[in-house]
Amino acid sequence: MYEAAILGASGYVGGELLRLLLGHPEIRVKKAYSRRYADKPVHYVHPHLRGFYRGLRFERFDSEVSPDADIVFNALPHGEGIHITARLVEQGIRIVDLSADFRLKDPEKYKVWYGFEHPYPDLLEKFVYGLPELNSEELRGARLIASPGCNATASILAAAPLIKEAIIDLQTIIIDVKVGSSEAGRTPYEGSHHPEREGTIRPYQAWGHRHLEEFLQEARKLTSRGLRASMIPHAVSSIRGALASVHSWLTRDLDELDLWKVYARFYRGRPFIRIVYSSTQKLPDTKNVVGSNYADVSFAKENYTGRVSGFTALDNLVKGAAGQAIQALNISLGLREEAGLEVPPLKPA
Amino acid sequence: MYEAAILGASGYVGGELLRLLLGHPEIRVKKAYSRRYADKPVHYVHPHLRGFYRGLRFERFDSEVSPDADIVFNALPHGEGIHITARLVEQGIRIVDLSADFRLKDPEKYKVWYGFEHPYPDLLEKFVYGLPELNSEELRGARLIASPGCNATASILAAAPLIKEAIIDLQTIIIDVKVGSSEAGRTPYEGSHHPEREGTIRPYQAWGHRHLEEFLQEARKLTSRGLRASMIPHAVSSIRGALASVHSWLTRDLDELDLWKVYARFYRGRPFIRIVYSSTQKLPDTKNVVGSNYADVSFAKENYTGRVSGFTALDNLVKGAAGQAIQALNISLGLREEAGLEVPPLKPA
Amino acid sequence: MYEAAILGASGYVGGELLRLLLGHPEIRVKKAYSRRYADKPVHYVHPHLRGFYRGLRFERFDSEVSPDADIVFNALPHGEGIHITARLVEQGIRIVDLSADFRLKDPEKYKVWYGFEHPYPDLLEKFVYGLPELNSEELRGARLIASPGCNATASILAAAPLIKEAIIDLQTIIIDVKVGSSEAGRTPYEGSHHPEREGTIRPYQAWGHRHLEEFLQEARKLTSRGLRASMIPHAVSSIRGALASVHSWLTRDLDELDLWKVYARFYRGRPFIRIVYSSTQKLPDTKNVVGSNYADVSFAKENYTGRVSGFTALDNLVKGAAGQAIQALNISLGLREEAGLEVPPLKPA
Amino acid sequence: MYEAAILGASGYVGGELLRLLLGHPEIRVKKAYSRRYADKPVHYVHPHLRGFYRGLRFERFDSEVSPDADIVFNALPHGEGIHITARLVEQGIRIVDLSADFRLKDPEKYKVWYGFEHPYPDLLEKFVYGLPELNSEELRGARLIASPGCNATASILAAAPLIKEAIIDLQTIIIDVKVGSSEAGRTPYEGSHHPEREGTIRPYQAWGHRHLEEFLQEARKLTSRGLRASMIPHAVSSIRGALASVHSWLTRDLDELDLWKVYARFYRGRPFIRIVYSSTQKLPDTKNVVGSNYADVSFAKENYTGRVSGFTALDNLVKGAAGQAIQALNISLGLREEAGLEVPPLKPA
Repeated sequence: MYEAAILGASGYVGGELLRLLLGHPEIRVKKAYSRRYADKPVHYVHPHLRGFYRGLRFERFDSEVSPDADIVFNALPHGEGIHITARLVEQGIRIVDLSADFRLKDPEKYKVWYGFEHPYPDLLEKFVYGLPELNSEELRGARLIASPGCNATASILAAAPLIKEAIIDLQTIIIDVKVGSSEAGRTPYEGSHHPEREGTIRPYQAWGHRHLEEFLQEARKLTSRGLRASMIPHAVSSIRGALASVHSWLTRDLDELDLWKVYARFYRGRPFIRIVYSSTQKLPDTKNVVGSNYADVSFAKENYTGRVSGFTALDNLVKGAAGQAIQALNISLGLREEAGLEVPPLKPA
Repeated sequence: MYEAAILGASGYVGGELLRLLLGHPEIRVKKAYSRRYADKPVHYVHPHLRGFYRGLRFERFDSEVSPDADIVFNALPHGEGIHITARLVEQGIRIVDLSADFRLKDPEKYKVWYGFEHPYPDLLEKFVYGLPELNSEELRGARLIASPGCNATASILAAAPLIKEAIIDLQTIIIDVKVGSSEAGRTPYEGSHHPEREGTIRPYQAWGHRHLEEFLQEARKLTSRGLRASMIPHAVSSIRGALASVHSWLTRDLDELDLWKVYARFYRGRPFIRIVYSSTQKLPDTKNVVGSNYADVSFAKENYTGRVSGFTALDNLVKGAAGQAIQALNISLGLREEAGLEVPPLKPA
Repeated sequence: MYEAAILGASGYVGGELLRLLLGHPEIRVKKAYSRRYADKPVHYVHPHLRGFYRGLRFERFDSEVSPDADIVFNALPHGEGIHITARLVEQGIRIVDLSADFRLKDPEKYKVWYGFEHPYPDLLEKFVYGLPELNSEELRGARLIASPGCNATASILAAAPLIKEAIIDLQTIIIDVKVGSSEAGRTPYEGSHHPEREGTIRPYQAWGHRHLEEFLQEARKLTSRGLRASMIPHAVSSIRGALASVHSWLTRDLDELDLWKVYARFYRGRPFIRIVYSSTQKLPDTKNVVGSNYADVSFAKENYTGRVSGFTALDNLVKGAAGQAIQALNISLGLREEAGLEVPPLKPA
Repeated sequence: MYEAAILGASGYVGGELLRLLLGHPEIRVKKAYSRRYADKPVHYVHPHLRGFYRGLRFERFDSEVSPDADIVFNALPHGEGIHITARLVEQGIRIVDLSADFRLKDPEKYKVWYGFEHPYPDLLEKFVYGLPELNSEELRGARLIASPGCNATASILAAAPLIKEAIIDLQTIIIDVKVGSSEAGRTPYEGSHHPEREGTIRPYQAWGHRHLEEFLQEARKLTSRGLRASMIPHAVSSIRGALASVHSWLTRDLDELDLWKVYARFYRGRPFIRIVYSSTQKLPDTKNVVGSNYADVSFAKENYTGRVSGFTALDNLVKGAAGQAIQALNISLGLREEAGLEVPPLKPA
């Protein structure tokens, strides 16, 4: 049994790690760190988990000390845990970093998208971008995992088969993402105030969203051709759920069955991808994946113009965060990829 | 391994039985019956379960034939399965009836509350009212279980300790219930049309709600004194969740710690009751139990007047339906009460 | 044309005063005060009002100076404007105070319910409690109006006819209120964070809610008998809307038509009360009053027990705040009671 | 005072016509037609309008008879009123048709998008496409108005300035629309069942949406160059609101101020367009226009790629239906364009 510590355990992603690891056969949570809630029991901020984790209290992470665990999950906001992570790397601890701190390989991109000079550029190449559907080979045996962003995950999964087989115009890729309110985390702010958020439909960060760079980094591995893509996220009033709609134009005359084959080939054997295009359903719905690690993927072609869209619906806190982190970790540890993640979605919810 | 059949498997409660039994160590679903969706795969109406139950298709229940299962769950609407159930009783099949058809012991009450002459009055006494927190002794070995209504469950759990210890005015019990939209089932109707339901706060059936009779039936077992209680349900715009607020007036001078003891005594050892009154929380919230079989119970006393309220928050589809049915069945089969039900709540959702 | 100034104009109630007064034939907003947003245009915090109030910017209220207006609306949080209001009283300015600062007549009650010694006890009797349906006579010519709380308004309107005619047990009045998220105002906090609020059903302040004292103060004017009532509010996930369900037990044998007459007598000629009990509808729904000053009132009797309930559905920001303030002001100024308030409800919304 | 009749007055668009015309200085509703609700009072299906329209009852439209009104609004579903409309045209009655029946000029397109042979192809050219921001000249004096679809309106308003000035790649226009649940009307169906709709994010009609043809028809008037555009709508869980995000790639090196000028030039003097790009706000939000006829328009440019997006947020039942119909009618009648439509948006709601 591996023992895990969670940094930032009081946030929503931390809460999902706690929830999912309850059902993991090989990993148990030993330490839950939170500066703000130090000494409070875990159910103080996660009242749904009352009765689970009896006796576990949040602790303040003492930077001088090793977390005394086999695995550390970093669920802190971007930048907050970067120095801790670097020290843990030195200590040789296995790390799954759910922040953006080590996702990008090119340190220059941190200036462009995050506005800071990355303090550990040499570490960037040591982290594996933990998207199992693309990088499972690299993940085997990996000790440092940078877990992808939720919008990036949804976008890449929707587009990867189309890009790999080069059947779309790679110069005009529009990624239009719609996300629920839990994506912004637990801290209240004006945009998440219920009267302001419920019922909204609004674009945000329409001048450039950071997850685009993750998309581009991974997409470039799939093709040798030039790529131009842009991402525009929108806030809607779901709590959980992200839907990525990736639009471009077919460069070959393919029908829907051909497209189905493109996706089926790409995701063959991937346990958490459900290609939902079928006789009973055509398009994904975020409501079908709530609480689970499944990504429901599909596509649609408009015959009038040749526009094709790839779609992914996922739960931003699970396949977009905590679940995917466990999935990647499972692979890296040589466990079954599905371990602890076979919980079915909850619907209606 | 017990084999189960589900009548009405295409509804929301049927879907939750399918979901929860996936994780049950001793029971597996063999047959899913649905007249309307006969021959369709289970994921046709439960797309969240795509990939689970591969090969299972809805079947039309043939009334001439035994369901070829050890256990039958009846998740049909009230009245629709009553003759089937009676025949299954004759066949000696173990039954968990989630409809109201066999909940009430007194056949006269069916005239009053359901408007029909009960066709099998002799069977009523043979069914155990499957509320484990009150009737676990009767459930042991029971082969016929009538699973309680969701509003009844929430109301009884909130009030039972107060009634048992006779510390409230038993003549002025007001049960004010608030419920989400999934309670009315999967069939669309005007009141559940999204533009009409989302954002609503409205009373319904304020002239008398059927679940009151269940409340009274069970409450009368707890006290020899006369009881007068009334139930008023309200529709709100949650999807899952029912909150029962049971109000009356203290007849003794008790403080909050005394009240806590009243609840703690009553629910000692009950695995799915969480008395949430504590240093970190005082009152329950339906959001803390979504997807789970937990009932979060608490209470509040107003010092100015001596009014006391008992509260229960539960998931109407789980502790209010499918989960409680499995819980009662577990007891009846001599299994661990928690078997298949240890899934933690999902939050935020 | 009267000129009005609004203190706390950046809040939700301030926004509704701005919206409604746009359509008022005799009152126009001259000044919008907000400390936090001083110098910003009004549409900075009220972007829905972009294009209206061109040129109007929030100003910092300078306590040394008169607001140079005929009427001052105080929409500040409780306590924040109390000294300003007292000074404005000295200056002889007409005031509509939407905070709780001058609602209660008995200064002792401020200690009990608000935890402070009221600094201006002599002023309390000078303010008229601005509930037009009960106090229209006192409002005529009044220069100082304390506008009621939203939960108090809903509760009093539901119960007043029953109390006035003494047809219920006055010793066992349970007021169970359900409210939307806008009631708590514009400032984000944990309970209003969208992932925490959307879908919730939870009681709060179940140990005693301040609006109970307003209810009691006004109810005592309607009867010479003793009254025992208790109020328990619940948070649900609507944005706008409050529903008060006031429950007690009939002391006389009345049928529904009798009850209708009780309400019809009480509210005869009141332009904003809609008694919705009719051949087409029986019970109120908050969705039918959104954006408007209407209070939809009805009742229900349970024949089994004689329990009777009065219900009010209203928009907490309009009839529960800004609209009612204008309605009371209209009466005090001798204008048509409906002036500026004839905007029909918005549905579905 | 013009007298109006409404066909399909019991639907959501019919309800909004009733609401808005209450405030119109020159038009009053004389007749409300509904087959299903014939003889019921208007507030039977529009309970929010109780107390308004006293005495008005729905009538069955008798096809043999003239509606005895100056103006007929057709708010029936597509196709249902097409023969009635044709007859009314013969009778010389002024018509505002809110269905799609006469929006397209080319009868061939009805086969492609609506699957039927248009029975009155000669009438198509006689109707003016009632989008005042593009066609105000044609609307002056027009007696036959085909009021645009909501998604078409939002899309055209977002894209028109970019197309007119030919500053984007006209061959790669992606129109990604997100809409609330009221768009599908009052009739309950599975996709609008509250447990299925609330919280959803899902694409629909991704193979081709009918409103695309309206977009193309109007866009082609703005440019002589070839156009390739595709529309993909998504259902989200708002009640009111549609947001169109129109994406393409800049063909010239323009900065944000240049873009602002492009929009400002195009919409100069248009009373219901609010270009929200400013120092205080950049992007539109459907919540800022609820209940009103305003369309909030803005744009964003991503510097990394040159992708530019135009955005429109509007209320699908007002600027997307009933409000726009009245706006176009006002112009056709020579009235003030804003008559009856100056109601400010409602927020939060």
